Amino acid sequence: MNISEESLRLHGEWCGKLDTVPKMSIATREDLALAYTPGVAEPCRKIAADADEAYRYTMKANTVAVVTDGSAVLGLGNIGPLAAMPVMEGKAALFKAFGGVNAVPICLDTQDVDEIVETVVRIAPAFGGINLEDISAPRCFEVERRLIDALDIPVFHDDQHGTAIVVLSGIINALRLVGKRKEDCRVVVNGAGSAGIAISKLLLSYGFCHLTLCDINGIVSSRTQGLNEAQRAMLATTNLDDRQGTLADALVGADVFVGVSAPNVVSAEMVASMNDDAILFAMANPDPEILPDVAKAAGARVVGTGRSDFPNQINNVVAFPGIFKGALEARAPRITEAMKLAAAEALASLVSDEDLCEDFIMPEPFDPRAVECVARAVRECRE
Amino acid sequence: MNISEESLRLHGEWCGKLDTVPKMSIATREDLALAYTPGVAEPCRKIAADADEAYRYTMKANTVAVVTDGSAVLGLGNIGPLAAMPVMEGKAALFKAFGGVNAVPICLDTQDVDEIVETVVRIAPAFGGINLEDISAPRCFEVERRLIDALDIPVFHDDQHGTAIVVLSGIINALRLVGKRKEDCRVVVNGAGSAGIAISKLLLSYGFCHLTLCDINGIVSSRTQGLNEAQRAMLATTNLDDRQGTLADALVGADVFVGVSAPNVVSAEMVASMNDDAILFAMANPDPEILPDVAKAAGARVVGTGRSDFPNQINNVVAFPGIFKGALEARAPRITEAMKLAAAEALASLVSDEDLCEDFIMPEPFDPRAVECVARAVRECRE
Repeated sequence: MNISEESLRLHGEWCGKLDTVPKMSIATREDLALAYTPGVAEPCRKIAADADEAYRYTMKANTVAVVTDGSAVLGLGNIGPLAAMPVMEGKAALFKAFGGVNAVPICLDTQDVDEIVETVVRIAPAFGGINLEDISAPRCFEVERRLIDALDIPVFHDDQHGTAIVVLSGIINALRLVGKRKEDCRVVVNGAGSAGIAISKLLLSYGFCHLTLCDINGIVSSRTQGLNEAQRAMLATTNLDDRQGTLADALVGADVFVGVSAPNVVSAEMVASMNDDAILFAMANPDPEILPDVAKAAGARVVGTGRSDFPNQINNVVAFPGIFKGALEARAPRITEAMKLAAAEALASLVSDEDLCEDFIMPEPFDPRAVECVARAVRECRE
Repeated sequence: MNISEESLRLHGEWCGKLDTVPKMSIATREDLALAYTPGVAEPCRKIAADADEAYRYTMKANTVAVVTDGSAVLGLGNIGPLAAMPVMEGKAALFKAFGGVNAVPICLDTQDVDEIVETVVRIAPAFGGINLEDISAPRCFEVERRLIDALDIPVFHDDQHGTAIVVLSGIINALRLVGKRKEDCRVVVNGAGSAGIAISKLLLSYGFCHLTLCDINGIVSSRTQGLNEAQRAMLATTNLDDRQGTLADALVGADVFVGVSAPNVVSAEMVASMNDDAILFAMANPDPEILPDVAKAAGARVVGTGRSDFPNQINNVVAFPGIFKGALEARAPRITEAMKLAAAEALASLVSDEDLCEDFIMPEPFDPRAVECVARAVRECRE
């Protein structure tokens, strides 16, 4: 089966991947009077008197907007809001299928940061949370920061934080397997876009001390030209001895490589130069930074990718449904750093000591325990 | 049963009246690859190459935004966007239950016309149509006009045009019953807000020639103080001999009364002063301008209200689901005047000559034929 062709055919058959479905039957005058006028006036009055009642009487309690401007869609780039719809519908479908969370695709016909922020603020009343999706860096950082400041509901850029949570959970287990301590590890993150920066930040929050961020020109240092504000800010916590050099230079003696960059940028020689029991997460899609068998042959101990046809798939679907489920259940006004760390640890804990091995460091994307385990971790941070 | 109490209890149980539900199962890696990445890239590419393909591959084809600013919610007034949610969810539920059309509540945290317009324009890509709801006059006129100009998808303010279509369909049948010609009838519309103005315009489009618009101060004339732009514009086509006076003055000799105003503003004496075979649509909610039995006793032949506990209920639910269903199926870029007239005539035609009588001039709200009959009328206007 050709996945692209079959997916296109199915999309034509589905004609949209989501339906909005009433929870109640509306088949009689009485049904109508209860679900709509005149009965509906009563919950309206309650909410007018106390805004919190919206969480009791409306779908706000369990509904997320999946918001994009279509500027960084999958690997397709800036294809615009309309062409981003199939991805947003898919994401919304995953919210429901995995988390039981309602989700509505919102594709914005603007790529201006001010306009994105003000638009999302204006549509926020109907939603209990905002999932930002496929918005290009560095605009995504400002959009997220300003929305978090402006709104009292959780705002979460999954491409950043969902990815970071899942990567951290994998690294936690990989270290468990190889018996290294986070404090001792040297980590190299290749790719200084939204995912790379978010992963770096979360690893630092977790307690990694030696982290080097690389971009297409090599190690990000004080001498790197053309850094954006978010990248420059990373110099305060990464590459603390301000080394210069290539990715290959950075990898010499490194314990962990995390790639959110481009195909085939890591060679067997580079892996061989890493520390013993090297851990690689090569997540460029569809072709990873290095193929798992090549990395293994060069001495890597644990390799993860974004792909489902290799072991250790890094897939956000184990995280974001539970993140929002937990945050909505707890009525959390934001997703805190503590919640992200707790979610990663909870995910890692789903792999038992008996099951843990080189080819099984992550819960499967369809692990039925993932959503509730992450949701509980998030709820408990709030409580 | 107390409708308000029971409705409140049910709203607490439902916790939102809509779910977003995936159309496909997502239970295996293959499902995920087809509905989401990597397969989803292919429909994205198709839409990026040709925007029209969004109607083939996404829910835009069959999804409406139900948009409010919460400024004129039911009879509750300006209760704001959050408190309007139960109404918008109810409306969205009706779209699906009656028309098979997906609908998403969008409650805007602004009541500024410019901001409403720009926000709806920015979120439009994901939607095939915009249903405006419970936005106060006269702002609703400008919001609707500017959105129609800005967008290439149907924009429809149901409080105006849905009501107008259903009233016109009732009047068509009432005239059929009493044997009067529209050209000869004198019509009085009481209430110069959004519904009253829209009803007046549609009746004039249909071919009524003698129409007088009244507001709380009586007949709207060139001497009426404080008219807004939309009301002033009506002077070009209504009250052509520029009479002044009260509602009672206007009703002397009138054939048709349409009330979208306030309880009990029409007396038995006023009905008695009307022409023979008087027709009254007294739609103030929950208490009509005059009770049907009082009007009948005073000589009225046909009386309709907004209430389900009297005969001839004027209920938008027979119109709006079919209007949008037809417009979406036809990919109509707007709802034209011809579509509204065709919808009203189609609805009227559902009452057969045998069934037509004083107490049955309108299809029932749950008439299963209504949606397809209206949708067909709309589609045929487009073809």
